[in-house]
Amino acid sequence: MAEHIVKFDIAPKAVRVPTGTLLAEAAHQAGVTIQQPCGGQGRCGRCVVLVQSGTVRRRSTLRLSSADVESGYALACQTVVEGDVSVVVPPQEKIERRLTTDRTAAEIEPPAGYNPDHLQTIRRVALTLPTPTLDDQTDDWSRFQKTLRLERGHPEVKASLRQLRQLGQTLRDGDWRVTAILDTETGDESARLIAVHPGHIPDHAPVWGVAIDIGTTTVTLYLVDLFTGRVQTQVAEYNGQIARGEDVISRIIYSGKNGGGIEMRDLVLGTINELVSEACQRTQIQADEIVKATIAGNSTMIHLLLGIPALSIRLSPFVTAINQIPTLPAQEVGLNIHPDAVVDCLPGVASYVGSDISAGVLSSGLDNTDKISLFIDVGTNGEIVFGNNEWLVACACSAGPAFEGSGVVDGMRATKGAIEEVWINQATYEPTYRVIGGGKPRGICGSGLIALLAEMFLTGVIDKSGNVNLTLSTTRVRTGDHGPEYVIAWANETALGRDIVISHVDIDNLLRAKAAIYAGYTVLAESVGIPLEAVEQFLVGGSFGKYINVEKAVEIGLLPDLPWENFHFLGNTAARGAYLALLDREARARIQDIAARMTYIELSADNLFYEAFTSALFLPHTDLSRFPTVQTAINV
Amino acid sequence: MAEHIVKFDIAPKAVRVPTGTLLAEAAHQAGVTIQQPCGGQGRCGRCVVLVQSGTVRRRSTLRLSSADVESGYALACQTVVEGDVSVVVPPQEKIERRLTTDRTAAEIEPPAGYNPDHLQTIRRVALTLPTPTLDDQTDDWSRFQKTLRLERGHPEVKASLRQLRQLGQTLRDGDWRVTAILDTETGDESARLIAVHPGHIPDHAPVWGVAIDIGTTTVTLYLVDLFTGRVQTQVAEYNGQIARGEDVISRIIYSGKNGGGIEMRDLVLGTINELVSEACQRTQIQADEIVKATIAGNSTMIHLLLGIPALSIRLSPFVTAINQIPTLPAQEVGLNIHPDAVVDCLPGVASYVGSDISAGVLSSGLDNTDKISLFIDVGTNGEIVFGNNEWLVACACSAGPAFEGSGVVDGMRATKGAIEEVWINQATYEPTYRVIGGGKPRGICGSGLIALLAEMFLTGVIDKSGNVNLTLSTTRVRTGDHGPEYVIAWANETALGRDIVISHVDIDNLLRAKAAIYAGYTVLAESVGIPLEAVEQFLVGGSFGKYINVEKAVEIGLLPDLPWENFHFLGNTAARGAYLALLDREARARIQDIAARMTYIELSADNLFYEAFTSALFLPHTDLSRFPTVQTAINV
Repeated sequence: MAEHIVKFDIAPKAVRVPTGTLLAEAAHQAGVTIQQPCGGQGRCGRCVVLVQSGTVRRRSTLRLSSADVESGYALACQTVVEGDVSVVVPPQEKIERRLTTDRTAAEIEPPAGYNPDHLQTIRRVALTLPTPTLDDQTDDWSRFQKTLRLERGHPEVKASLRQLRQLGQTLRDGDWRVTAILDTETGDESARLIAVHPGHIPDHAPVWGVAIDIGTTTVTLYLVDLFTGRVQTQVAEYNGQIARGEDVISRIIYSGKNGGGIEMRDLVLGTINELVSEACQRTQIQADEIVKATIAGNSTMIHLLLGIPALSIRLSPFVTAINQIPTLPAQEVGLNIHPDAVVDCLPGVASYVGSDISAGVLSSGLDNTDKISLFIDVGTNGEIVFGNNEWLVACACSAGPAFEGSGVVDGMRATKGAIEEVWINQATYEPTYRVIGGGKPRGICGSGLIALLAEMFLTGVIDKSGNVNLTLSTTRVRTGDHGPEYVIAWANETALGRDIVISHVDIDNLLRAKAAIYAGYTVLAESVGIPLEAVEQFLVGGSFGKYINVEKAVEIGLLPDLPWENFHFLGNTAARGAYLALLDREARARIQDIAARMTYIELSADNLFYEAFTSALFLPHTDLSRFPTVQTAINV
Repeated sequence: MAEHIVKFDIAPKAVRVPTGTLLAEAAHQAGVTIQQPCGGQGRCGRCVVLVQSGTVRRRSTLRLSSADVESGYALACQTVVEGDVSVVVPPQEKIERRLTTDRTAAEIEPPAGYNPDHLQTIRRVALTLPTPTLDDQTDDWSRFQKTLRLERGHPEVKASLRQLRQLGQTLRDGDWRVTAILDTETGDESARLIAVHPGHIPDHAPVWGVAIDIGTTTVTLYLVDLFTGRVQTQVAEYNGQIARGEDVISRIIYSGKNGGGIEMRDLVLGTINELVSEACQRTQIQADEIVKATIAGNSTMIHLLLGIPALSIRLSPFVTAINQIPTLPAQEVGLNIHPDAVVDCLPGVASYVGSDISAGVLSSGLDNTDKISLFIDVGTNGEIVFGNNEWLVACACSAGPAFEGSGVVDGMRATKGAIEEVWINQATYEPTYRVIGGGKPRGICGSGLIALLAEMFLTGVIDKSGNVNLTLSTTRVRTGDHGPEYVIAWANETALGRDIVISHVDIDNLLRAKAAIYAGYTVLAESVGIPLEAVEQFLVGGSFGKYINVEKAVEIGLLPDLPWENFHFLGNTAARGAYLALLDREARARIQDIAARMTYIELSADNLFYEAFTSALFLPHTDLSRFPTVQTAINV
């Protein structure tokens, strides 16, 4: 067998290994320590290295983007040597940063062949008006309209009173040469005037828009050059409403109190306007250069943003005040961008299937594929869409925020200090864990909880009902304040100065959450008479989905047992859908179409749901035949 | 000759007079004093009596409405006995009131056969929505739209964010039975939601609108039941902007100063909102029951109302910022009526031919007649329209406010204390005058100035150039502070405690004003090649026009020398035009059409104008052949 020379940048000398040797093994031989908390399963991404030259073969690229692979990154535990190679081992903190930084933004690229002339509703037109004379006393506004009609063929232009007030001065400041920004949302037949600038602005100057995803937990904003489609910057911040409730239900209740609706509106506007300000500062532009905004969010978020009472959303029969919001000027909404900017709150479907889902479905491509697909957005709620280019059914599972760390004593959001992955030694029951940002843990986030649940189940720390096995010969299992519990980190290892544990109550909450989601799949599948096994692709959206470990999620029965390659993790599909709608009138029309043809199935009205829920309260499920790979794993 | 018995209610016994005897003469015989300040010419209206029974023939009914005549009123100096008659002589103060009260309002009647279903853009529809259930989770707004579409066939309905915020609660308050107020301005294809009320409102309950005329001097408002067309109340008040300038030019200048535009806007809004409040109080309704407003006004007034800079109006080439204002929600305009009420500022033509004129032309019917017609609105400016149903030309004469009492030392507006009519005794040069509201005079208003000028000219107090003849044997002519002058009232007769006079300077100003207007007719007539003598009807609009004395106005050359019956005094044509547009979408379309097809002739660019102006600076005109009846009067 051929041998190859492998050189690691931080090792004093190269090693010689046969073809097919794992880079991890070669590193070991060279005396280089590469972290492998997942035990070399290619799942944690901690063993990433940079192959500078030479031939390798990647068995798996999980946690690597295609850009990473192109740049030469490889997982040491999943990559074999096939020639002489030179490898750089990045410093640990750089890996940490890479793993914990949201890579979605960098990956957002304008749609292939993006043609703003055809797809963008915003137009920028340079106009030269004939100068008024005593023989031509046409009023300013008619003069402007006429020039626009003659030069650009927009037969009808509408303007706000604000624009009409400013027009005369602008025309004279520009000596009758001006540049107009128009919105042609309804087609070139009619246009809405957003702004007029004196003089002719060069074609290469950008015109800005923002795509906003209002999550219950996090608000994300992309600042986008509307004509190139480039995402100039991406910013995100916790939704300021968190202070008044973690989930939509508590926020609806709060908003119904005296003055609560106004406060909720102000809080989320505060968050958005801060993000606008930050994005502008980064890009060195003025906020009033932003002339268009698309907004995705669940129905409660959109109602609260617009100051529309949301109370009916939480009371049977669970109806929204409005799903199809007309476009509104920014000033009316309260966004600190150009006051006449077009704000397009994307259309939602139902009380618990909002525009985050319709935009997410667009972004996922589910509505455009022949393949039978499942789409799930696991955020503070779990919304599921089943379908393809011919039909769409959707439901929302009141999963609760357990997987966002709420309802679990040591649960927390996926931020610095959160345990995001856990492995338990089958023999000793001792855990290994990875903390976001490194350092001492403060709690466990969603992906950590999934991994923990799976590992506890597979190692027998808990049984299929979630009961902790107190008979194990380890101090990690014990009876605590909340009943039986498992200790993930001892007090001296944590940033809290106390043990981080998962109790039987926490486990119950997690089981209920995952059971609700699995029951959702089941009901949707039964509603259309297509078994889950027939699902050809499983599309996972939502920021939570980005770091989910498929194997573990299948092991606990949160995801159905499908081949790994059928799972696609899409990041923030709602934000990306809003971005596409911002750029592309056809994408916007598709969201409309998605919202219109999606059949919403109300689970609370469905006895089938309760049955499915009850059956799914086990690990991974009462009916183990639904999880053949888990069955195999247990038997091993 | 037959004799008849005439009985006056205030005379002890009846008199016997032959057929054809004037009632005034019969009264004299019966010992009844009837005031005849105009000398029995049938012009002052002071000798009005009520014929309770019997046959009379009215030679003239000037200053009587058709309703008056129907009620039996007659001018004693113009009415002859043709049978036994019984006459009531009204107390003098009752006559004063009748003469000085604006009778226009009472005369405004809905257009014959007014059919709101066809003509009114506002619709009130009672809707019963299906109650939402778990099987029908349609959102409130879609549910509302769908019901509206099914029941009324409005395919597209738009709503403000304000309406969307309120809808859900209103639907539930009304237990899914609501009454919607819609505007269908653009036809039944699309509608704009103005308001939704819980429950079903009975059909007979009125829906209110306001028609507003913003005059430079006076703002007039009619509160109108939109479905019956009835004018419920009419209110008027001085335009609050007067404090910042009497004419449009001074207001434009003021508005261009720092903060001046905002102040001007607030001032006129203050006036309008006060009028709204007064009209509502009188009618015992709430301001937000008013759901539609139409507004007429000259272009400066409309610009200032909307906060649109008006500076370009007064600078060559005299263009407005906008003539065709889109409809706006009341809140954006600042009107204190329903915030989503439709505010329709009617379309104007040019800087000095505003929507008061396009609405006035509609009201006058000029655009609809075969007859060659002249229309004039003498307000603070004098705008003239020449034309018929086939063509329309218009101009504005910078007449200045002399006929509104400004630019004349003892000039004043037509309010209490103003001398509104003057007669001068040919032999003694002693004047007789009538004061609005009775009592001592404070000054002279427009109609008084016209009468005064005519009387001075006819009696030789002034010559045809306006020079005072100081050689007359009367103390009434003298040289005062401003040069030669004529004393109309001695100090002890006046409320001022000083003499009320007209000086040579005042006379010059009046001559310039009337010459500007006459030059306007001339230029318009020449522009279309039709002589003034061919004018078949002369339509006089504007509140000033209401009390104008045709004979006097012809004598000074302010009106052309046409047969009396060709003159029609129409009162506030701008307000009436706004009223018609408020009721009737076809009338509104006609105003649009009038504005579009009216050719504006800019006098300041016209040498012909200066010639015509110079020729008209004489009484009545350099070319006396243009005024044959005046020529006759002088020769008599």
